[in-house]
Amino acid sequence: MDQIEPISRMVAELAHLPGIGQKTAQRLAYHIAGMPLEDVRNLATALWQGRKAIRYCQICGNYSVDDTCEICQKSERHNGQICVVRDPRDVIAMERMHDYHGLYHVLHGTLSPLDGIGPGDIHIQQLLDRLAAEPAEEIILATSPDIEGEATANYIARQLKPLGIRVTRIAHGLPVGLDIEYADEVTLSKAMSGRREM
Amino acid sequence: MDQIEPISRMVAELAHLPGIGQKTAQRLAYHIAGMPLEDVRNLATALWQGRKAIRYCQICGNYSVDDTCEICQKSERHNGQICVVRDPRDVIAMERMHDYHGLYHVLHGTLSPLDGIGPGDIHIQQLLDRLAAEPAEEIILATSPDIEGEATANYIARQLKPLGIRVTRIAHGLPVGLDIEYADEVTLSKAMSGRREM
Repeated sequence: MDQIEPISRMVAELAHLPGIGQKTAQRLAYHIAGMPLEDVRNLATALWQGRKAIRYCQICGNYSVDDTCEICQKSERHNGQICVVRDPRDVIAMERMHDYHGLYHVLHGTLSPLDGIGPGDIHIQQLLDRLAAEPAEEIILATSPDIEGEATANYIARQLKPLGIRVTRIAHGLPVGLDIEYADEVTLSKAMSGRREM
Repeated sequence: MDQIEPISRMVAELAHLPGIGQKTAQRLAYHIAGMPLEDVRNLATALWQGRKAIRYCQICGNYSVDDTCEICQKSERHNGQICVVRDPRDVIAMERMHDYHGLYHVLHGTLSPLDGIGPGDIHIQQLLDRLAAEPAEEIILATSPDIEGEATANYIARQLKPLGIRVTRIAHGLPVGLDIEYADEVTLSKAMSGRREM
């Protein structure tokens, strides 16, 4: 006997999610098949109604339930700083630090020529349009310190230079708590070249 | 800013699934938030419609779309053998071997006094009722070789002995391909005591 059709369909859909392979999808599908109807209804409703309620903030591109997100709605956060990140998850990570009080700009991707992702495929033009409408004093490029993140930061920096806006890049170095012995050589080299007077 | 409500709700529901913690649930929710509406509809529909379509086979307790499952519907599988397993996933595992041609009985759990799961909480009485209605020649106890699986197998064997039915237990020993060096001592001891003439 093969899997019954409702379970195969669950497996196929679940296996589309990131980090969920065939085995995990199968485990989840069998679990869901045995869950109380009410619980499955709640799960399916949360996903579908939730997705329907979510749109992109018209200003920064963050996920939002309104036309503009909670952050862009707060006048005190319009302090001249815009932090550029890859996706909405990075906004949550930055906010968790409770230390940044400016605005964000979500690129929804990073430049990756090998994957065919060029400047027109991520929200770079939206950033330029936004700066033309409401000037900023500092653009903080907070893309990840990997090849795509660096390329994206460099590209945006070159676009912004002619506008005379201050462009900064978040520091790379040793993560707090990491023993030097276990640091990879690129991180260590970034930590050395970014060293400061004490 | 905290997570917007639709995302928090997705995270809360996803985190109920087995093996999905807060971090994974958050990663999945952010991914789903950015998926095309159509894809999320397909996912939610597969889960909800799928769950609604699934019931338990009235004979063996396996997942089924009809009153009785595909296996119980095939007359050639009523060969006098009933293989007793913990849950429907185990049926798929046994079927994958293409070597067993009898019926199944799904217990939907194993005895676990510490978790308050006694004989009345799993489908043992259903097995006895079933045997009263359609006698079998051999009951193969295929619960896992862990404490709960062994206890369940022993309990069922004691219930069936008075009925004069042949009761067997699947063999425990070294899994194929495992180097003896890496076998745990309990497995090795089971492999020794279960040794056969060559």
